[in-house]
Amino acid sequence: MITINRHYDKLHANYLFSTISRRVAEFQKANPTANIIKMGIGDFTKALPAACITAFHRSVDEMASDATFRGYGPEQGYDFLREAAARVEFTSRGASISADEIFISDGAKCDTGNIQELFSTDSVVAVQDPVYPVYVDTNVMAGRTGEWSEGRYGGLVYLESGEENGFVAEPPEIPVDLVYLCFPNNPTGTVASSATLERWVEYAKHHRALILFDAAYAAYIRDDALPHTIYEIPGAEEVAVEFRSFSKTAGFTGTRCAYTVIPKRCRAFAADGSERSLHELWNRRHTTKFNGVSYPVQRAAEAVYSAEGLKEIRSLADFFLGNAKIIREGFERLGLKVYGGVHSPYIWVRTGSDSWEFFDRLLSDAHVVCTPGAGFGRCGEGYVRFSAFNARSAIEEAMARIERVMTAEGT
Amino acid sequence: MITINRHYDKLHANYLFSTISRRVAEFQKANPTANIIKMGIGDFTKALPAACITAFHRSVDEMASDATFRGYGPEQGYDFLREAAARVEFTSRGASISADEIFISDGAKCDTGNIQELFSTDSVVAVQDPVYPVYVDTNVMAGRTGEWSEGRYGGLVYLESGEENGFVAEPPEIPVDLVYLCFPNNPTGTVASSATLERWVEYAKHHRALILFDAAYAAYIRDDALPHTIYEIPGAEEVAVEFRSFSKTAGFTGTRCAYTVIPKRCRAFAADGSERSLHELWNRRHTTKFNGVSYPVQRAAEAVYSAEGLKEIRSLADFFLGNAKIIREGFERLGLKVYGGVHSPYIWVRTGSDSWEFFDRLLSDAHVVCTPGAGFGRCGEGYVRFSAFNARSAIEEAMARIERVMTAEGT
Repeated sequence: MITINRHYDKLHANYLFSTISRRVAEFQKANPTANIIKMGIGDFTKALPAACITAFHRSVDEMASDATFRGYGPEQGYDFLREAAARVEFTSRGASISADEIFISDGAKCDTGNIQELFSTDSVVAVQDPVYPVYVDTNVMAGRTGEWSEGRYGGLVYLESGEENGFVAEPPEIPVDLVYLCFPNNPTGTVASSATLERWVEYAKHHRALILFDAAYAAYIRDDALPHTIYEIPGAEEVAVEFRSFSKTAGFTGTRCAYTVIPKRCRAFAADGSERSLHELWNRRHTTKFNGVSYPVQRAAEAVYSAEGLKEIRSLADFFLGNAKIIREGFERLGLKVYGGVHSPYIWVRTGSDSWEFFDRLLSDAHVVCTPGAGFGRCGEGYVRFSAFNARSAIEEAMARIERVMTAEGT
Repeated sequence: MITINRHYDKLHANYLFSTISRRVAEFQKANPTANIIKMGIGDFTKALPAACITAFHRSVDEMASDATFRGYGPEQGYDFLREAAARVEFTSRGASISADEIFISDGAKCDTGNIQELFSTDSVVAVQDPVYPVYVDTNVMAGRTGEWSEGRYGGLVYLESGEENGFVAEPPEIPVDLVYLCFPNNPTGTVASSATLERWVEYAKHHRALILFDAAYAAYIRDDALPHTIYEIPGAEEVAVEFRSFSKTAGFTGTRCAYTVIPKRCRAFAADGSERSLHELWNRRHTTKFNGVSYPVQRAAEAVYSAEGLKEIRSLADFFLGNAKIIREGFERLGLKVYGGVHSPYIWVRTGSDSWEFFDRLLSDAHVVCTPGAGFGRCGEGYVRFSAFNARSAIEEAMARIERVMTAEGT
């Protein structure tokens, strides 16, 4: 008899963003004329950079002739892209990451979801709370947690983040094996200082733990003193894996390209304590279960790192940070406490009330979609996340509606 | 301490095709002037169909403007592609598969590798021998096997395929939970009749087993009486998942698009015997760990199903089947026993000798790359696989060289 993976039964609810999609679709169906403004999902709304479009077309043309056609590429990605990423994102910032430590993939969601396969199912996993649900759900599916109870999974270590620590988790007192960190943070938009990351690297070295560092939003950092990659911290290459994405940087949410950095010096251990190369393990997984990213997509991604591409993505991020400022200031005018939105496209707003209730109210009264903080964990209750990815006019309209609704309700 | 998944230590050797690549690269380095002809990996060598190129460019242009830009798409794939696949590949052949039973992905290798996650780690898995290594390695990684010993993993059920059953495995006497079948077969190029598949469906119903049916090469079937999809067999929709790919059909090996069919009636069971929907489980995995296929790639794949696209892919498959005929007849002239190559781009040749030795000899003496049968399992020893994916002139040149080398050695 074919028996299912029993851990799937532990999964508490539908994936957050699928749930939001469904609620919005139902509302739109019931209110067909409502002009809904979506500030929920962090989905890009601007065209791909012109440099990417040119490279994309050129490589599609290569696929049109037998002589220049490309079949299977290296599973790890083409050298042209790995080299450009190593140079622009790492060595330029003094982090000694080489091209062959970069594994190109079709998405950071896949990579952050798949990486846990390399580890023992009895590994103790720590996540920040609030947390990007993929880190949690994929570990639930793999059996690294107990049952769901009172908003949490048994066996997971939740690093509580709130106003007291500025939504930036510090290393816990207890040892853990695997810790997911995300800075600039999704959902709160907060950033970690070098000092914080130094404490994390030291923690990981001390406990022989591994840091899974999600830096998908690094392009939004506007303070050069802040670390853009964890590999700016000395020693991080032994204890940290980093995830990057072209989605929020260059609008590849629908085009699909990302990468994972696994330094060759990065360590894991067999049960007897002997060292193993994480790079080799991931390479084995990648070559066995993955067949590389679409060649034209890799060419489009390479163009992000051209002089023209870099200028374009800078201006795209600036544009969305401009939106973030409008959102931030709008809520501040309404007297709400606001986090993020400075080095991040996400704005984290304290609503005080039940966050799904606030979501529903905003949807029905202002026809604006946000993401309920509770969907990111218990510490997210009382907050909602706004995404700055939208047209300027939509952001302005949304903020005007919200102001109207909340002012009217406040009176 | 971060401890690795101990099952990775059981993996016996490097992934077959990576090993071949390395040996070929080493030979080429030592013999820089050698004109090596690759008939190892089943990699497409012809340009993408013109219909796909047109659609590809058009959708890249959509990405170039804010108004038509597409961000995140549905994780399961766009309806336009799911609907076209359902219509052309299934309902047209009397198989009642609907669009929402089709999950678009970036590769059949990923899907056949990932599907096992849905099942209990103590499921008993059966594979044909010889076998596509991904089915085996991904189950080893998940802990569904014992150690490697004498060319096999403990705990796996190997369905021995050889000349006695024409390399088409029949259901075993014992019950298994999960069985991987691939027809037209990789590596042997053999096809299963409706009668054989009927016996498999009956077996699966009787034992409440699940069939994972890899139909990546269905486009090469040239006999209308042969089943092109397992869903032509009544009842299969309750007990079978099918994998399809655009790689070998339309040359998407470097462009990346595939899909998995999970009928809504397809069953799995909880430990207590209660039924579960496999469709729901896969949907949960797909939405949690995957973010959809590149939009322009999905548009290019959709064009495969246009009138022009269908004509083009038919002619591409005919071309490679023409190559297969040349290879087949060449080896037959040399007095060797040959399988496949009729409804398949793969030709399976009995060499008698050690297959890695034959691989090395062919590489060094004829500068031709094949795939050693032993890489596909114990029953593959004594055979090698030739792939018909190459230019006509390369195939002719390779066969002339092989004939020269083997005739000279035979004297």
